[in-house]
Amino acid sequence: MNQQYIDLVQRLEEISHLSGVMSTLSWDQEVMMPIGASESRAKQIATLAGIIHERATDPALGDCLATLQEVSKARAWGVTEQCNIHEALRNYEMETRVPKRLVQEIAELSSRGQGIWVAARQDNKFSDFAPVLKRFLSLKIEWAQCVLPNLLPYDANIDLYERGTTMAMLTPIFECLKLELIPLINTIRSYSYQPDTVFLQGKFEKKKQETLARKISRDIGFDFDRGRMDESVHPFCGGSHPTDVRITTRYANSNFIESLYSVIHETGHALYEQGRPYHLGDFPVTESSTMAIHESQSLFWERMVAQSKFFCVHYFDLFYKTFPENLQSVNAEEFYRAINTCKPDFIRVEADEVTYPLHVILRYEIERGLFDGSMAVEDLPEIWNELMQQYLGIKPPTDTLGVLQDSHWGGGAFGYFPSYTLGALYACQFYQALLKEQPDTERNIAIGNFSPIKQWLNEKIHRHGKLYSPQELIQKVTGESLNPDYFIAYLKKKYHEVYQLA
Amino acid sequence: MNQQYIDLVQRLEEISHLSGVMSTLSWDQEVMMPIGASESRAKQIATLAGIIHERATDPALGDCLATLQEVSKARAWGVTEQCNIHEALRNYEMETRVPKRLVQEIAELSSRGQGIWVAARQDNKFSDFAPVLKRFLSLKIEWAQCVLPNLLPYDANIDLYERGTTMAMLTPIFECLKLELIPLINTIRSYSYQPDTVFLQGKFEKKKQETLARKISRDIGFDFDRGRMDESVHPFCGGSHPTDVRITTRYANSNFIESLYSVIHETGHALYEQGRPYHLGDFPVTESSTMAIHESQSLFWERMVAQSKFFCVHYFDLFYKTFPENLQSVNAEEFYRAINTCKPDFIRVEADEVTYPLHVILRYEIERGLFDGSMAVEDLPEIWNELMQQYLGIKPPTDTLGVLQDSHWGGGAFGYFPSYTLGALYACQFYQALLKEQPDTERNIAIGNFSPIKQWLNEKIHRHGKLYSPQELIQKVTGESLNPDYFIAYLKKKYHEVYQLA
Repeated sequence: MNQQYIDLVQRLEEISHLSGVMSTLSWDQEVMMPIGASESRAKQIATLAGIIHERATDPALGDCLATLQEVSKARAWGVTEQCNIHEALRNYEMETRVPKRLVQEIAELSSRGQGIWVAARQDNKFSDFAPVLKRFLSLKIEWAQCVLPNLLPYDANIDLYERGTTMAMLTPIFECLKLELIPLINTIRSYSYQPDTVFLQGKFEKKKQETLARKISRDIGFDFDRGRMDESVHPFCGGSHPTDVRITTRYANSNFIESLYSVIHETGHALYEQGRPYHLGDFPVTESSTMAIHESQSLFWERMVAQSKFFCVHYFDLFYKTFPENLQSVNAEEFYRAINTCKPDFIRVEADEVTYPLHVILRYEIERGLFDGSMAVEDLPEIWNELMQQYLGIKPPTDTLGVLQDSHWGGGAFGYFPSYTLGALYACQFYQALLKEQPDTERNIAIGNFSPIKQWLNEKIHRHGKLYSPQELIQKVTGESLNPDYFIAYLKKKYHEVYQLA
Repeated sequence: MNQQYIDLVQRLEEISHLSGVMSTLSWDQEVMMPIGASESRAKQIATLAGIIHERATDPALGDCLATLQEVSKARAWGVTEQCNIHEALRNYEMETRVPKRLVQEIAELSSRGQGIWVAARQDNKFSDFAPVLKRFLSLKIEWAQCVLPNLLPYDANIDLYERGTTMAMLTPIFECLKLELIPLINTIRSYSYQPDTVFLQGKFEKKKQETLARKISRDIGFDFDRGRMDESVHPFCGGSHPTDVRITTRYANSNFIESLYSVIHETGHALYEQGRPYHLGDFPVTESSTMAIHESQSLFWERMVAQSKFFCVHYFDLFYKTFPENLQSVNAEEFYRAINTCKPDFIRVEADEVTYPLHVILRYEIERGLFDGSMAVEDLPEIWNELMQQYLGIKPPTDTLGVLQDSHWGGGAFGYFPSYTLGALYACQFYQALLKEQPDTERNIAIGNFSPIKQWLNEKIHRHGKLYSPQELIQKVTGESLNPDYFIAYLKKKYHEVYQLA
């Protein structure tokens, strides 16, 4: 093995270990840390972040990468080595191309912006938040010009979360979704039948919810010897390494579906993390792919598997035994319909799978408009409400329920939203490929035999780490590029059935 | 402020923050980490330890300290600055004076030695452990000659835990304890009356034990906004900062005294940590003093306060309400006697306050003998058993219950044991000073008013951080140097009363 490459791996592993430590601190902060420790913890995190930055921008790393680039041309690396060199180079350039002043201003505004956003949302006062948004916009355009000068600024921001994806790819997909989903939602709204969902509300003892969620997470394949499950204000999947994957949830006394399906969602993320090829080493090629691929794994289990009739049929007995008073007059079929209702509403994070993409498209169009100058920050509340009316037929009564609802912009995260819907499309297309390759899948779900599904995902997706781009991966797994038709056909079939429209 | 000093403080704070991160990782490892993560965590810890070592041995830190030393002679620093410079210099010298080869060999043997010790203890086979002990002895002599060449090698090892304490100080104190405690224990053994302790065994629901322990920890003064309480295999007090102090305990179903008094013990450590003057900054002067002073704080609460009759009188009602079946035929006086029995036994960590010092003295005399060459590793089992017979009148039936019982030597920790007994002596002498200054103390304990006690400890001990040596501190707080007479008088009075010897 080339000495320069060995040096690179050592540097990358050091950065990876320190990032693992940082992840443990973040998890601890959300789940364990006493409230009084926030200031001391912030200092510890800042110190560690400084050291990671120092390592990631070490000129010696740059020299090492430059030499390897030269060598690369001369010799044929394996795909693993190629990927590590390529990813390391990209990270190094992204870290070193931004002037320190800009890094600091973005960090400072991210931290201050969150507080301003929280207050503005609480006060329903967009004008308080508008200056933050404007400043972020100009900082993120400048940032884009530094790190990825060959891309349009908004494309560069998308690229940060969704490598290789551009507006040129997203716009046709989203136009297609609008064309199909808006009429579908209107049809559903116009229909007189509505599934009964009353029994989903009630009293559900927390301890029982937790036992149920742990059992199903384990059934699906979460390895508790290499992970944990705890509580936090916002559910997430964190942890420091594929051998240490930590999911969280929150429990509402009045609703067990939320925590259960959030655990299944996070378990999907966790299975991806636990399935990474970490035995190769702690460097880029073993990391997970983009946000959308990660989201495809959580949505695969949450929607494709757990919101299916087969899953409901299998687990209904257990649900009934756990909450007999609540579910005594319901059967599995009615349960399945109840958890699959479609209803336009204001809040993205509470949206169902049919309306969710329109929430995302609305945000995508606004971000695109802000970056290309066709929209002004001042006009956003009005634009938001008009688009809501146009896409979902409803108008938020306040900005708190409208343009101010998401935390992303308060932290300067532009270009993140599309990943949610790309994830849904990937999940659906992966699932169709699985059905083709393993025609027993639905029968397996109906008897709770999830291991063939998990193994298929491990084999087809997880074990590749970051080796393939999402575009290569979907081609490899499904034999074609990302195609929204699968998602549209899935929704049409399912919701016609749920709403007895057929 | 001198620019060099500002530079020093920044460097020291960085090291302190990274050490805080390391403490969080250690806590997580004992309390939270999934079993499968041990290997990945070990790598993360090794990387972080490497960076801390790099910072602590940075030649620029050495230059900074050298300049400050020069400046020191020229100008009068405040005591805080003096202490920071002095401590930083000591740490720097201790880190840089040891050759890398020796550091690595000690680290390697520490890690390997623990496994060998565990197996040897399990197999009752001292001969398997003897080579580790021999190697450690020679490594630790070499280490001592590097870092503290002006001290005798065993004194240097003691100095690591108990700065400024030497055999010349310890031996007379320990001789005095032997002279008094051996006859006291014999008298107690010869007496026909024995307190009834049967009711301390039984069934004690874990949840109730935890609620009780949390309440008493809070009553004593533990600030749960700046700390946590969890479970672990071995109880400890950890955490990353005075605003993030984490104690642990373990619960046995058959005994509630063990967990309760272990929580009180760890709360004593925690109050010290929470009472540190962290508002000054994260540098040496705000750290805690030596092991013995730390132990004095845990033993102060565990023994002086919580094993007193006044404490038992105050809490007996609560104990009874918590465990009515177990305590129905007992009163507070009988409870007090039961938790204060004295009985020679083989295991140090289970020993009572009268016999405990003899376990420590035995180990001290063996370590001293090993270092001065008057004892050979091969002879330790025999020497151990002879001394046990001489001091406690009992002979361990196996080496597992004798010379192999402690983990310390498997990690090369020589010179640590004396701190336990010094801590007991300090605790008792501090308590006598408190009684003199606040004659209401016992009445306060009897009504559960602990805040004057905590405030006194905060004021007299905690808030000074590392500013004073233990020798200066005891002088300042009690008006005299460490004097074992207080401890001896306390034990004689208490145990005559408990055993109705008077």
